[in-house]
Amino acid sequence: MRLQDLAQRLEATLRGDGEAVVDRLAPLDAAGPGSLGFLANPKYAPLLETTEATAVLVDEAVEEAPCALLRVKNPDLAFARAASLLLPPPPSPEPGVHPAASVSPDATLAADVSVGAGAVVEPGARIGEGSVLYPHAYVGHEAEVGRACRIHPGAVLYARVVLGDRVIVHAHATVGSDGFGYAWDGARYVKIPQLGTVEIADDVEIGAGTTIDRARFGKTAVGPGTKLDNLIQIAHNVRLGSHCAFAAQVGISGSTRVGDGVRMGGQVGIAGHLTLGDGSVFSAKAGVVKDVPPGAHFTGYPARPHRQMLDEWRHLKALARLRETVRDLEKRIRDLEQGKADDPGR
Amino acid sequence: MRLQDLAQRLEATLRGDGEAVVDRLAPLDAAGPGSLGFLANPKYAPLLETTEATAVLVDEAVEEAPCALLRVKNPDLAFARAASLLLPPPPSPEPGVHPAASVSPDATLAADVSVGAGAVVEPGARIGEGSVLYPHAYVGHEAEVGRACRIHPGAVLYARVVLGDRVIVHAHATVGSDGFGYAWDGARYVKIPQLGTVEIADDVEIGAGTTIDRARFGKTAVGPGTKLDNLIQIAHNVRLGSHCAFAAQVGISGSTRVGDGVRMGGQVGIAGHLTLGDGSVFSAKAGVVKDVPPGAHFTGYPARPHRQMLDEWRHLKALARLRETVRDLEKRIRDLEQGKADDPGR
Amino acid sequence: MRLQDLAQRLEATLRGDGEAVVDRLAPLDAAGPGSLGFLANPKYAPLLETTEATAVLVDEAVEEAPCALLRVKNPDLAFARAASLLLPPPPSPEPGVHPAASVSPDATLAADVSVGAGAVVEPGARIGEGSVLYPHAYVGHEAEVGRACRIHPGAVLYARVVLGDRVIVHAHATVGSDGFGYAWDGARYVKIPQLGTVEIADDVEIGAGTTIDRARFGKTAVGPGTKLDNLIQIAHNVRLGSHCAFAAQVGISGSTRVGDGVRMGGQVGIAGHLTLGDGSVFSAKAGVVKDVPPGAHFTGYPARPHRQMLDEWRHLKALARLRETVRDLEKRIRDLEQGKADDPGR
Repeated sequence: MRLQDLAQRLEATLRGDGEAVVDRLAPLDAAGPGSLGFLANPKYAPLLETTEATAVLVDEAVEEAPCALLRVKNPDLAFARAASLLLPPPPSPEPGVHPAASVSPDATLAADVSVGAGAVVEPGARIGEGSVLYPHAYVGHEAEVGRACRIHPGAVLYARVVLGDRVIVHAHATVGSDGFGYAWDGARYVKIPQLGTVEIADDVEIGAGTTIDRARFGKTAVGPGTKLDNLIQIAHNVRLGSHCAFAAQVGISGSTRVGDGVRMGGQVGIAGHLTLGDGSVFSAKAGVVKDVPPGAHFTGYPARPHRQMLDEWRHLKALARLRETVRDLEKRIRDLEQGKADDPGR
Repeated sequence: MRLQDLAQRLEATLRGDGEAVVDRLAPLDAAGPGSLGFLANPKYAPLLETTEATAVLVDEAVEEAPCALLRVKNPDLAFARAASLLLPPPPSPEPGVHPAASVSPDATLAADVSVGAGAVVEPGARIGEGSVLYPHAYVGHEAEVGRACRIHPGAVLYARVVLGDRVIVHAHATVGSDGFGYAWDGARYVKIPQLGTVEIADDVEIGAGTTIDRARFGKTAVGPGTKLDNLIQIAHNVRLGSHCAFAAQVGISGSTRVGDGVRMGGQVGIAGHLTLGDGSVFSAKAGVVKDVPPGAHFTGYPARPHRQMLDEWRHLKALARLRETVRDLEKRIRDLEQGKADDPGR
Repeated sequence: MRLQDLAQRLEATLRGDGEAVVDRLAPLDAAGPGSLGFLANPKYAPLLETTEATAVLVDEAVEEAPCALLRVKNPDLAFARAASLLLPPPPSPEPGVHPAASVSPDATLAADVSVGAGAVVEPGARIGEGSVLYPHAYVGHEAEVGRACRIHPGAVLYARVVLGDRVIVHAHATVGSDGFGYAWDGARYVKIPQLGTVEIADDVEIGAGTTIDRARFGKTAVGPGTKLDNLIQIAHNVRLGSHCAFAAQVGISGSTRVGDGVRMGGQVGIAGHLTLGDGSVFSAKAGVVKDVPPGAHFTGYPARPHRQMLDEWRHLKALARLRETVRDLEKRIRDLEQGKADDPGR
């Protein structure tokens, strides 16, 4: 594709030869002639000087480079679009049911569904048009999978969970396992039946190994467009809003309500029965034990407003010096106290 | 079921019309006439005013409401019992071996065992009466599963692990993977054979994605009635007592011994070779590096007795003020020191 | 095997009867006559007094015991070797493809490969000589598995990932799932194609449930001899050096470069785009937000050099006392200030 055509499609400002051609994507330090490179993180800007890429997608702030530049407002977004223009779509399994799959005759498969070897679809389950069940995917009794979903190898959907359209579930993710609920009867834990279900809205992506428990009753819910990384735990009765993004190993305890557009770094933990406001942000490893207002940025454990936590850490770092100061003051006060007695006229 | 009958079965005090009938369970904010609601967490008490439930299971502390009340000592426990009275038991797969399962002729299946599509039972394995292996469950060589167990889709039991009766293993849990043990020979890690096994006692529940490693030799053991949530790591040679309850993403390092009735919040980490006393409790995200006495409550990292940790956090929060105070004292001392020189008679 | 022969093979100094025979391995507190016991952790030294083992492998520091001793420099290493001498190799599945496996005719299997029931090998995949795919293992399109690998039940290798020789992948580990990358277009997250792959070098071991994401482009890489415990997250474009060892539940964020011989305790988290030097060490639960130089030991959150972090914790612990001291000083200064006014000649 000629750079001037690509620039037009990506709404980019071109600096360089519009007739030059690129036909593939490559990282800056591995790109050769014919490649379109990519720079979003300024940390890697020095690579721009030495790259052999024919052209590089960059932020508008970048003005000059030894190669052609496609300057855009949002290089990440432009890269995503360039990939769909330059690359063939990833191979998608053929529609049809593999002979080694086990699909119940009481399940309903829409047109163009692909079911891989070893996949299991239980009675009453419904799979929407164009969805792909990779090998070993499991769709439980009366579970519903929307249109154009991709259920990767070994993903497990327990009975009666509901997925919207274009949902991606990665390998070994589990949706609908029992919530962790017991009543202590004085001698042992009695299991509290988990009678509810899980509802996953459209355009959600669920990472490898992530677990989302079914509700005690009612439902555990994940809003549209929310993206969950790997090995995340979403407990029973949690409600996540739309367009949230959580990094790996986050844990959300039972019945907590998370607003829209909430972002979390890795290994964040949120206590149960809390409310996190729309647009709130949590630094990696934060541990949250109280409600958080909309738009707030919380950090540390127990989590506090980000600036306040940074201040506390700064004070903590300076504590050794503070102790010395206090020791010095003690001595000087002792001197003053004694000094007056010994030598009042000094 | 009439409320007066239900009250009798649940040992509840009824306030309201004993002839009224309920036939289902529902959350307070979604309950309609004919529903039995439920209130355990006082945080949700305001919902009691507006619920349309015919009756609500409540703690004895609740005295009045616009609907009928079934007042009990332990609402969680009563709910668990009410569920078994009002609801049909969850659908259980039919006994029998699915044609797409692979059961070794050298395995032993007791009466009424159900083996789902794609499940694999290796030679020498034994499955007890009434147990269910869901699709893709894997039972390794000479592994033993007791009676009335439920092994959910994709759960993996490595060779020779032993499960008691009524054990529930959720999707993608792994029991018996190799412990993490290597010897450094000066140039590389040499794998130390993990020759032991894992023993899971009766009535244990193991959450989705949880991993329990086999012992180096001897056994990793989980005591009766212990409940493990999702994505927990139990390392080799760990011994967990009876009736423990660990929330999601807890990690227990090798050879640690955990007493009976120990409770842990989410994302707790315990170092290796420690002893945690009976009834000890750990707040979410605690990191434990020393033995803990029975009944103690530990919090934070490195974990300290809960009250002490709260005090330290309080002091940390007040540190900015302390620094100001010290700065002020410094100034006043300087004044005193100079004041004497300048104006000894002041 | 006679102790004098065993001593020679293990390069051990024998203290005791060289004609005595051992034929099995056992833990000190469960060993009987004929057993070889083992002591590496001094914490368990008291068991040496009461063990019924015929001989015990010990560190050279141990001089006397009621049983025979095989004294070695590195008891862990000697134990690993003794296991291979005394024990039959663990049962290895027979070579051949189980009739319930699904191997594409377009896949290439070398000699002596074993493919278990329900395992799936996609078109273009290559499996090296002597490798074992346990039941439910999944090898994606054009993925490559080297020689003598063991892919445990349910492990998933996405399309085009590459494994070296003697790699062990435990149950439910996922290699090659999509990296977590999205561009915000002002209204929703647009998925950034993850076009790269994962390369796992020789002699790597990957724990149960661990997830390793494919690169955005280029590759995510794990160096030779590196050992990863269970439930670890390795994000896209991460590069791990050789001979690293990470305990369970560690998380490494995207594009971070980890040197050779790096060790991490459980639940450590590393931010993205960092560089960790060769031989650096991280205490359990450390949270790392900056580059770390070679050989450094970092602890806590945000992680600091270990000694410095210990100092800060010590100061924090002493903070209550410091506040009291300051309060006392305040009072004394007040006295001094007033004292001068009241009684200038005192």
